[in-house]
Amino acid sequence: MASIYDQHLDRNQANYQPLTPLTFLERAASVFPEHIAVIHGNLKITYREFYARCRSLASALAQQGVGAGDTVSVMLANTPAMLEVHYAVPMCGAVLHSINSRLDAPVIAFQLDHAESKVLIIDLAFSATIESALSIASVEPLIIDYLDPEFPQQGQQLGRYDYDAMLASGDCNYNWLMPSSEWDAISINYTSGTTGDPKGVVYHHRGAALLANGNVITASIPKHAVYLWTLPMFHCNGWCFPWTISVVSGTHVCLREVRADAIWAALARHEVTHLCGAPAVMSTILAADKTTQPVIEKPIDFFTAAAPPPESVLAQMREAGFNVTHLYGLTEVYGPAVVNDWNQQWESLPTHEQASLKARQGVRYHALEGLEVLDPETMQPVPRDGETIGEVMFRGNVVMKGYLKNKQATDDAFSGGWFHSGDLGVVYPDGYIQLKDRAKDIIISGGENISSIEIEEVLYKHPNVTAVAVVAMPDQKWGETPCAFVELDEHDAVSADALIDWCKQHMAGFKVPGHFVFDAIEKTSTGKVQKFALRERAKSILR
Amino acid sequence: MASIYDQHLDRNQANYQPLTPLTFLERAASVFPEHIAVIHGNLKITYREFYARCRSLASALAQQGVGAGDTVSVMLANTPAMLEVHYAVPMCGAVLHSINSRLDAPVIAFQLDHAESKVLIIDLAFSATIESALSIASVEPLIIDYLDPEFPQQGQQLGRYDYDAMLASGDCNYNWLMPSSEWDAISINYTSGTTGDPKGVVYHHRGAALLANGNVITASIPKHAVYLWTLPMFHCNGWCFPWTISVVSGTHVCLREVRADAIWAALARHEVTHLCGAPAVMSTILAADKTTQPVIEKPIDFFTAAAPPPESVLAQMREAGFNVTHLYGLTEVYGPAVVNDWNQQWESLPTHEQASLKARQGVRYHALEGLEVLDPETMQPVPRDGETIGEVMFRGNVVMKGYLKNKQATDDAFSGGWFHSGDLGVVYPDGYIQLKDRAKDIIISGGENISSIEIEEVLYKHPNVTAVAVVAMPDQKWGETPCAFVELDEHDAVSADALIDWCKQHMAGFKVPGHFVFDAIEKTSTGKVQKFALRERAKSILR
Repeated sequence: MASIYDQHLDRNQANYQPLTPLTFLERAASVFPEHIAVIHGNLKITYREFYARCRSLASALAQQGVGAGDTVSVMLANTPAMLEVHYAVPMCGAVLHSINSRLDAPVIAFQLDHAESKVLIIDLAFSATIESALSIASVEPLIIDYLDPEFPQQGQQLGRYDYDAMLASGDCNYNWLMPSSEWDAISINYTSGTTGDPKGVVYHHRGAALLANGNVITASIPKHAVYLWTLPMFHCNGWCFPWTISVVSGTHVCLREVRADAIWAALARHEVTHLCGAPAVMSTILAADKTTQPVIEKPIDFFTAAAPPPESVLAQMREAGFNVTHLYGLTEVYGPAVVNDWNQQWESLPTHEQASLKARQGVRYHALEGLEVLDPETMQPVPRDGETIGEVMFRGNVVMKGYLKNKQATDDAFSGGWFHSGDLGVVYPDGYIQLKDRAKDIIISGGENISSIEIEEVLYKHPNVTAVAVVAMPDQKWGETPCAFVELDEHDAVSADALIDWCKQHMAGFKVPGHFVFDAIEKTSTGKVQKFALRERAKSILR
Repeated sequence: MASIYDQHLDRNQANYQPLTPLTFLERAASVFPEHIAVIHGNLKITYREFYARCRSLASALAQQGVGAGDTVSVMLANTPAMLEVHYAVPMCGAVLHSINSRLDAPVIAFQLDHAESKVLIIDLAFSATIESALSIASVEPLIIDYLDPEFPQQGQQLGRYDYDAMLASGDCNYNWLMPSSEWDAISINYTSGTTGDPKGVVYHHRGAALLANGNVITASIPKHAVYLWTLPMFHCNGWCFPWTISVVSGTHVCLREVRADAIWAALARHEVTHLCGAPAVMSTILAADKTTQPVIEKPIDFFTAAAPPPESVLAQMREAGFNVTHLYGLTEVYGPAVVNDWNQQWESLPTHEQASLKARQGVRYHALEGLEVLDPETMQPVPRDGETIGEVMFRGNVVMKGYLKNKQATDDAFSGGWFHSGDLGVVYPDGYIQLKDRAKDIIISGGENISSIEIEEVLYKHPNVTAVAVVAMPDQKWGETPCAFVELDEHDAVSADALIDWCKQHMAGFKVPGHFVFDAIEKTSTGKVQKFALRERAKSILR
């Protein structure tokens, strides 16, 4: 018999609404209409205007027939338009597909086709790449060109519509759609993964809302915070910060390019309180001309991920006026879902001990229900000894809906009721985890995931290459860069430069290996490449 | 055809977990085990201990056969035990029923029977009332006596078990139960309502988790905040703060009695950052001997509800070192769901204008999806003119599951897809709402809801009373106090004192009217009592 607490106590419109970040903007615009929502160059957009622009775009898209379950792709820099699509696209029921602007045409074409893109909004700066991608793709999305009003870009208009004309055709009072269910998709982000074609990671409204709130809670972001966009929004929807900032009715400071002068100017001019970025952003900030830097009065919170911040960088950042917090996550968990939650007692430890503690990835976000390092065979937790390696696994409401049109990959990723990250790590006695060997084949360069297998496949196609193995090599500027170990055929007449040219023809520039080693490749007795050994060799090359 | 985003992208254990505040404590205890979770007198309890105690109690309750859908009632002061039951009871699947310690025996007996109480945990201070309630009630719950270790109370033990022995019988590593659904009940709170028997407002895990987070967001509560318990936890589960404080791994400072000396001592000793309470708490704080007050270095956030803070109190509170934020809500919306979200620009206005702005109830909590003032006939919003009165209505995830075993009242409350608060208000052009006439029959005295109808019913039973109408009368100390208008029969021989005695025999002391007026009662042509006119008369009595 059902409990008394389950009788006549059902859901209805009054006591149940789908969780969604869309209501966050509605509230901010209603409560603080004149507060500045977005700054871009000399442009300032209030919450009233921001909300009206999002509704106009949503209405215009709906007028074009875009609706529930349709994909709207964008390739945009960190501009106001990029923020607006994060609301406007789901407001008409559609799904936002934000494309990494560093990708090459074939990968973009694959994504457009796979996501069955109906609309493509592009910044003029990327029109050449997009034109080439469209010539390969099968889909024929409606093209909308974004002409940055503050920083005009060179590039050809590809569409019949420009972004502002599109907005003008919409209704700024459009009665936007709540998701029919909080499980509805809100966005898709492609990850290169370790093998094969890119996988489309689908986010839902529930997870986006919960992680947007989760960022506020984890980072103690107060009302009216000022957030600088040093993190590309095409990464995991900017770790959900386009939605997070509405939670606190804060201000977005856009940034087209992550340059030291632009960052320091923004920090000084807009009293920035928070920013995020890969370690490369910290290097950029620190490499700036010290004599022209403004003094930072109140510490600024910097959230970094992708690689542990080195001791020297931490010290320099502190001196420059930043509190650095180390986060960890993957596209599949909406960006950051693990935080190095700092313990007050650690402040009294020697600097180098603090640095090793800070290098750990940490503990689950408040918004994540489960984080474990498990033996993937037995699905049992590894001992908390800081030594036994297992696979980092996630469980909770900020884990993706799954991979689009890829049941097998989805089932594999979720096998045993946990999301398998592919990252290997250990757990310390205090429960903090540390990555020991990142998903074996992924190289993280300047915050970008590069699949070593993708590079290997390209090199394998070269007529003189007989064997190849690509691993990460530490790099001062980018964190990591690909290093290729190559075995050649008996002609033996290929130079590194020739292979670099070959790669450049077949992949995006940032993926091209920075170093080539022509030598026999270590293999196990069963013929498996010993990537661990190769990584050690790649490291030693630098010394 | 289902969208591509709905195919093979279902819920599973890895990507979906019920929202519940129980995981909040698990995380705090795992990440900050040595941080102080609870302070009570000289007692300090770390998160490790707090979590272990909650698990022990949950395990002990489970051993007693308490499980899903069972009610565990408590009548406790703001002690560590009261915090522990907020976790332990739902950890074994049961539902927490926290009884207002100011109620009289018949009402308590009604609640115990109605909620089908299986267990009753009581502070010795309340054992006389409980003994009397148990003599009336039909249920025979298992009784557990709580003997406050820091502030021993007089009173007879009623049960076979005492609280600490019960805990000792449990397993501190108990594998507590996640709710089977986030829609599962977590607690029940009885409200006197305006008519008839008390109604049991059922909360669920989803709403409790979302409002607990919502408090952090709305009040910008940072990590390791220190919270002083001046709000009774039997009110709407302490506005969900027993769960909120775990979100930020903060410290609870318990307080058995809301006395000025105890409050000021706690503020000074524990560096309190946040507290909540009815306006009576502010009066208590301000009435304290100024010469012995410590100086507050950092402003303390005080959240008040139940009545708008008067201008003079606001000024005095600011001077004493408090930021006052005005909240509004009802038991049916988990406590506070509306906030007077302060607008920076208002700081430059004259003080009295600021006070009128602050007197408004405000806008929806971030965690509440909808707040409107609607014409209850047409369900259309009233014009935003600050004048047209409508009924305040709520919609969203922090609205109750419904009233226990009361389908009719639940259906009525949710009619038209909105929760009907019974409160009347207006909307200003900026969207902020203000209550104009509180649910006609409710008197809010010292933060307690008193149903005027309940008092009227008692007075009507007096042999010499022929007509009666009770309304709120402003009161310096309690905010409001009941004022009774009485028409007597021709014998005309009853004094106010006699009626006070009559009331004292039939209701809790705090409900007894503070003033009696023997006069004809204004009625409309259709015979309806004009309570509005009576309230005006009650006000004028004071002048």
